[in-house]
Amino acid sequence: MKLIQKVLIANRGEIAIRIIRSLREMNIKSVAIYSTVDKDSLHVMLADEAVCIGDHRLINSYLNKNAILQAAINTQAQAIHPGYGLLSENASFAKACHHLGLEFIGPHYKTIELMGDKQSARETIRAAGVPIVPGSKGLVSNLDEAHQQAKHIGFPLLVKATAGGGGKGMRICYDKESLSHAYQQAVLEAQTVFGDGSVYMERFIENPRHIEVQILGDKHENIVHLFERECSVQRNNQKMIEEAPAHNIKPATQKKLYDVALKAAHSIQYESAGTLEFIMDKDENFYFIEMNTRIQVEHPITEQITGVDLIKEQIRIAEGRRLSVTQSDLKINGCSLELRINAEDPYDKFKPVSGKIGAIHFPGGHGIRVDSFLYQGYTILPFYDSMIAKIIVHSSSREDAIEKAIRSMEELNIEGIKTNQEFQLEILLSEAFLDNNYDTSLVEKFLKGEIQ
Amino acid sequence: MKLIQKVLIANRGEIAIRIIRSLREMNIKSVAIYSTVDKDSLHVMLADEAVCIGDHRLINSYLNKNAILQAAINTQAQAIHPGYGLLSENASFAKACHHLGLEFIGPHYKTIELMGDKQSARETIRAAGVPIVPGSKGLVSNLDEAHQQAKHIGFPLLVKATAGGGGKGMRICYDKESLSHAYQQAVLEAQTVFGDGSVYMERFIENPRHIEVQILGDKHENIVHLFERECSVQRNNQKMIEEAPAHNIKPATQKKLYDVALKAAHSIQYESAGTLEFIMDKDENFYFIEMNTRIQVEHPITEQITGVDLIKEQIRIAEGRRLSVTQSDLKINGCSLELRINAEDPYDKFKPVSGKIGAIHFPGGHGIRVDSFLYQGYTILPFYDSMIAKIIVHSSSREDAIEKAIRSMEELNIEGIKTNQEFQLEILLSEAFLDNNYDTSLVEKFLKGEIQ
Repeated sequence: MKLIQKVLIANRGEIAIRIIRSLREMNIKSVAIYSTVDKDSLHVMLADEAVCIGDHRLINSYLNKNAILQAAINTQAQAIHPGYGLLSENASFAKACHHLGLEFIGPHYKTIELMGDKQSARETIRAAGVPIVPGSKGLVSNLDEAHQQAKHIGFPLLVKATAGGGGKGMRICYDKESLSHAYQQAVLEAQTVFGDGSVYMERFIENPRHIEVQILGDKHENIVHLFERECSVQRNNQKMIEEAPAHNIKPATQKKLYDVALKAAHSIQYESAGTLEFIMDKDENFYFIEMNTRIQVEHPITEQITGVDLIKEQIRIAEGRRLSVTQSDLKINGCSLELRINAEDPYDKFKPVSGKIGAIHFPGGHGIRVDSFLYQGYTILPFYDSMIAKIIVHSSSREDAIEKAIRSMEELNIEGIKTNQEFQLEILLSEAFLDNNYDTSLVEKFLKGEIQ
Repeated sequence: MKLIQKVLIANRGEIAIRIIRSLREMNIKSVAIYSTVDKDSLHVMLADEAVCIGDHRLINSYLNKNAILQAAINTQAQAIHPGYGLLSENASFAKACHHLGLEFIGPHYKTIELMGDKQSARETIRAAGVPIVPGSKGLVSNLDEAHQQAKHIGFPLLVKATAGGGGKGMRICYDKESLSHAYQQAVLEAQTVFGDGSVYMERFIENPRHIEVQILGDKHENIVHLFERECSVQRNNQKMIEEAPAHNIKPATQKKLYDVALKAAHSIQYESAGTLEFIMDKDENFYFIEMNTRIQVEHPITEQITGVDLIKEQIRIAEGRRLSVTQSDLKINGCSLELRINAEDPYDKFKPVSGKIGAIHFPGGHGIRVDSFLYQGYTILPFYDSMIAKIIVHSSSREDAIEKAIRSMEELNIEGIKTNQEFQLEILLSEAFLDNNYDTSLVEKFLKGEIQ
């Protein structure tokens, strides 16, 4: 067992503060890093030490591996917590930590590498018996083969150019009668646009739900799941509101989700916190999409319903200690929602905004958790992610949690900049959300006025 | 059943905001009242309506019954929530509400009356089989009688002048040999100081612990207890830190506490939220002291360990609805601590201070709840209670909860005025507190330097 006494946090904003808080409660010293423009940031003030590592450009500071490693060595930190985003899924950074004898608080770099490549990740996870979206085995080289493969894949399906992107060289096909046409169109378009007519096929999951399962594993082959999160309230693939657990999934489906998530995690001897992401169709068929080998933005809702501090568990695991909980200790307690507050203008294409924060009031009281780096007088910078606060609510039922979420969006007051607060309130009050009958198309449909 | 659609809150500060939050989550409108000097108070901003009812003098505003009742009638509120302090235990106010057809959110005025008189309260509660401090039946009129009574009361005991106060006419007696002397001294001093030599005797509980049990009762004779709170960290009988549950009481004693609390509550058909206060000696003998017929300052720690929103339950009860929980639903989940932050100078005899709040940062993150009315630029007034914030922490164990409490006291930053924040941190870090081996003498001994 390796005793960690000081941790460098290779991140900024709310997640840096989140990590500092757990470190402090564990009596571990924290080292913040910051860019020149971040010198007045709250994470810098709250850490025990802070090191400026470069200018506002990510590549010169928060993505500057050597500067970060140098800061860790200079401050005699034994470990680095990467948070989310930035270097958190960068296998070569994790490997560099390993070579320097610095504990990377996350899974082994080989696991990051394996899961970082989408194709190898899917193959590996499929081999463990986890469903993935049915698709062709590699390229579909002619029309006959397309018809053969379609029998196994089922309809509706997508014909997709391997060189594709932005919907080019892609066709949706709803039945076998239209398959020949779709195949031909996709190949021709791929050839025209990309100069490469190679296509593959996979089942088309229309307006899926996004469901993910939280996993924790230690260095002693103990792995537990911490139930699922429903993350279907998204705009442009960016999550906006998350809930735990997913209340309208059948218990049998939940159980199956947990089982396959555990199987997958065991198959790769997963260490630290990780998340298996799935898409789920209307009939609750679900398919593995990818694994996030890091802590997620939405981890607090899992903490609220389980009482487990995921950051502390990550640190314990890095020290070589056993998980503090067994699977049978874990029970779902109530319902939790997270509302991401962004510095953006929802009524001008969600354009990110920056500027100085005036008066500020965060909601408080029973069942409210706030994770934020804002303070009155702080200036939101244009260089970084627009998420400025997470308001997390927890109550005994989904209905009560929604009432709390609504109350907290009514109570929150951030002056000086535009935020998506009002828009979040509108989504919370939408019928589809209240009725718990929504998928990843919710926000788009709401914006188009198709639902209210 | 009476549907409540609008509630007037006859209070100010954090408890007014606490109540507004629950009302909002229940879709009930709130009416704030305020004194002229309180016009910039947060409770006024957060309520749906606000009525100015008088000047800064309590008797002209927050204790001005007629002005408050008039405000309730003018705003068409159906109910009044009195919070704690002020009019919350004023039977004549509750009776006036009753006569006007306004629901007083609390017990029946006759219960308030009964429990408001300490002597009748003890008699009533004793009759229900609850232990009270052993004492003489009425006055002890001569020395012979003193010796007779002492056999039943036991030692150490107090001889106390009925007209007494400030320790005058009071003697502690540790054994029967010194009883005659103590009795004579007390009678003589009482005669000299008060012109009245009447004395009574009761067992002297040296440095007791203060333990209280939370009760909820509805109008259908359902009564539940919500476990106990340990409130022994006090200075001058003012609670400073409270914990739930009391971790170093034997399970058998806990059970006995709950049993007698339920018995007592049933004997008076208790409605709404209430608290039975006990003192407990080193051997875990406990004695009823008084009943608080209202919500208490420290109610959030009970909410944290049970998940029950006590204010919502009070409102449900006032509407005539049944309790939302049964006894078997209630389980203790982890440990919660409350730290009361006061505008005062602990290094100048805890003198209350007032002044303008500068920069402010509340602790946040996992397991932290903040109940406060502060905001940057707000001016603390000299007319009201000095408590300005409650920081409530919740975690799976007492050890973790203390780490969180320490972290939150390190993180809290209130500029512009002096507070007891540092002093709270010192108490948290004291050996007696950490070892969970303390009683109501903790703070006094700490201040005298007798413990560290």
